[in-house]
Amino acid sequence: MDAREFARLPDALRLWRGGVLHGGRIAYETWGTLNAARDNAVLLFTGLSPPAHAASSDRDPSDGWWQGMVGPQLAIDSDRYFVICVNSLGSCFGSSGPSSPDPATGKPYRLSFPDLSVEDIARAGYETVRSLGIERLDTVMGPSLGGMVVLAYAAMFPGATRRLVCISGTMAAAPFTIALRSIQREAITKDPDWKGGNYPPDRPPITGQRIARKLGMVTYRSAAEWQERFGRAPIRSDIEAQADPFASEFAVQGYLENLAQRWSNVFDANCYLYISRAMDRFELAAHGDPVALFRRASLARALVIGVQTDLLFSVTEQHAIAQALEAAGVATRFAPLSCIEGHDAFLVDLKTFGAEIGGFLRED
Amino acid sequence: MDAREFARLPDALRLWRGGVLHGGRIAYETWGTLNAARDNAVLLFTGLSPPAHAASSDRDPSDGWWQGMVGPQLAIDSDRYFVICVNSLGSCFGSSGPSSPDPATGKPYRLSFPDLSVEDIARAGYETVRSLGIERLDTVMGPSLGGMVVLAYAAMFPGATRRLVCISGTMAAAPFTIALRSIQREAITKDPDWKGGNYPPDRPPITGQRIARKLGMVTYRSAAEWQERFGRAPIRSDIEAQADPFASEFAVQGYLENLAQRWSNVFDANCYLYISRAMDRFELAAHGDPVALFRRASLARALVIGVQTDLLFSVTEQHAIAQALEAAGVATRFAPLSCIEGHDAFLVDLKTFGAEIGGFLRED
Repeated sequence: MDAREFARLPDALRLWRGGVLHGGRIAYETWGTLNAARDNAVLLFTGLSPPAHAASSDRDPSDGWWQGMVGPQLAIDSDRYFVICVNSLGSCFGSSGPSSPDPATGKPYRLSFPDLSVEDIARAGYETVRSLGIERLDTVMGPSLGGMVVLAYAAMFPGATRRLVCISGTMAAAPFTIALRSIQREAITKDPDWKGGNYPPDRPPITGQRIARKLGMVTYRSAAEWQERFGRAPIRSDIEAQADPFASEFAVQGYLENLAQRWSNVFDANCYLYISRAMDRFELAAHGDPVALFRRASLARALVIGVQTDLLFSVTEQHAIAQALEAAGVATRFAPLSCIEGHDAFLVDLKTFGAEIGGFLRED
Repeated sequence: MDAREFARLPDALRLWRGGVLHGGRIAYETWGTLNAARDNAVLLFTGLSPPAHAASSDRDPSDGWWQGMVGPQLAIDSDRYFVICVNSLGSCFGSSGPSSPDPATGKPYRLSFPDLSVEDIARAGYETVRSLGIERLDTVMGPSLGGMVVLAYAAMFPGATRRLVCISGTMAAAPFTIALRSIQREAITKDPDWKGGNYPPDRPPITGQRIARKLGMVTYRSAAEWQERFGRAPIRSDIEAQADPFASEFAVQGYLENLAQRWSNVFDANCYLYISRAMDRFELAAHGDPVALFRRASLARALVIGVQTDLLFSVTEQHAIAQALEAAGVATRFAPLSCIEGHDAFLVDLKTFGAEIGGFLRED
């Protein structure tokens, strides 16, 4: 029931900020079949927290994080493409990261895991693809963090992909998002249960993680959507003991609490800290002028999708990506969508996103 | 050097949610002179955290929270008006609240302070004004929380003010803001130093307060303003010990840290929790149909100011207030401003706000 496979990363892999990773691996899943020419591969990077399980398959029929988007005859059509989704380097769903064992000691790396960058997530995806005997992707694609990663991918590996799809990403983390992410990290690192990163596996800094996740969830959507979904509906009174004078009173609070508890039980706190910090630090211009980078990347076409209600990765930032691609001579479609679901719209409004992505992929 | 005066609230004051307050008092300051007709008073309510010291005066020449807005020949002209600013009931700058002594015990109320509502803040202002021998205000005015309070004031005390100025307020707390405020409160109540509200005065839940304040500050401004002010400028490296792998790296983080520390040292955590919860619960419609309420209020004119970049109290909510006032037959000016400073614009863009407020007050 677990469809994950694992790619070995080159040993002693030098990371972007100078660290070295020994015996690293990447967990991935695939859908569809690599053709004889080996030129029909679509590489999918995820947002901050999903695993490689983007969609159900024969081996793992459970729903994935992009269920309905990846599969036979769907927008990312596995009848036509060989789709690969990787769990990000630094994450905790099978890829090497702060919660995985350090081969030198057999114990979890924790904070001894080397300093992680968006560039390293891109490189780990690139090495995964090469381990499958693929020289050039048909398309590299990713939303949110994944949108940053695909830009790094194009910049770092010229000619390594024919097309690019960037969804609600950015060329450089904005100070508003840096501020929000640093508050989320602080909620975790100031939780006494974090213990400098050395929490026992069965006693993680759950309070800090819950606060971090709630803040994430609130900002992943739009104020208009919260209004539409919850308004001022009261919480079901049986959920919380009313002994707490500051107990939740509104449905929106109960919803966030449920989501936060679920997430905190599965996502490792140190992995979250590493990936969150990597997002803050990302700046494509560290590699050179974006227009020159995109020109050198030899992309045939690009699709850049943004959402008007996205609080975190503004549609202005998506427009800037599209403009840089166009200035580099890449045939680019810029799709500023009016979905109400904010940054998370790609997970929710599959109809609108499917039409954009499917249309782009089919156009060849 | 302290210009505060104190108004006694009626004893055994029944609060909106059923509690009773004994021996309550309100700290206030004034500017200008009450005229013989006693009809030139402007009552000013504050946002969540300021004291009654809105501006410098002969008695207290230090800058106030709305310095440059209140004073001789300024927009709120103390040569013409008798301006009163109250410290909200439940706050910690001289008014009765969770940190002030319970007359029954001589010890701080803490969580035994009665349950607080926006309506109680309005009533405490109303009683303060009456204690000064004023039957009817010329204008009741307030920004943010104060904008909620002035709407409650008009609804609860028909005929008690001739004009109303509501700045970035709302008729009902939106679920997006409820979610954010409940995260802020949780950061405090989950801080072990909060101790169920019984922290020693010299050891408050400073970690939770810092996180709450940072989240407040981030959302009080706009993403565009953070970009303009800080971009991705690095923090001055001497500020934090680099032993912490998750130490601040960007100027925006250092800025928030400084503000949060300053605030946490002066604002009481329990007071914050009480007022924050009161904001969540506010819903003008609990008093009846807003249009009917505004009609009964007998207002001559109203000014409603909103800011396009306000993430918390959207300009749509300001528009709804203005529409309800207009529907009630109140001559209303609605000013949707394009300032970049978001919810906090009233504290920053004094030129634009001063022109609107001064123009409105002068028009009579």
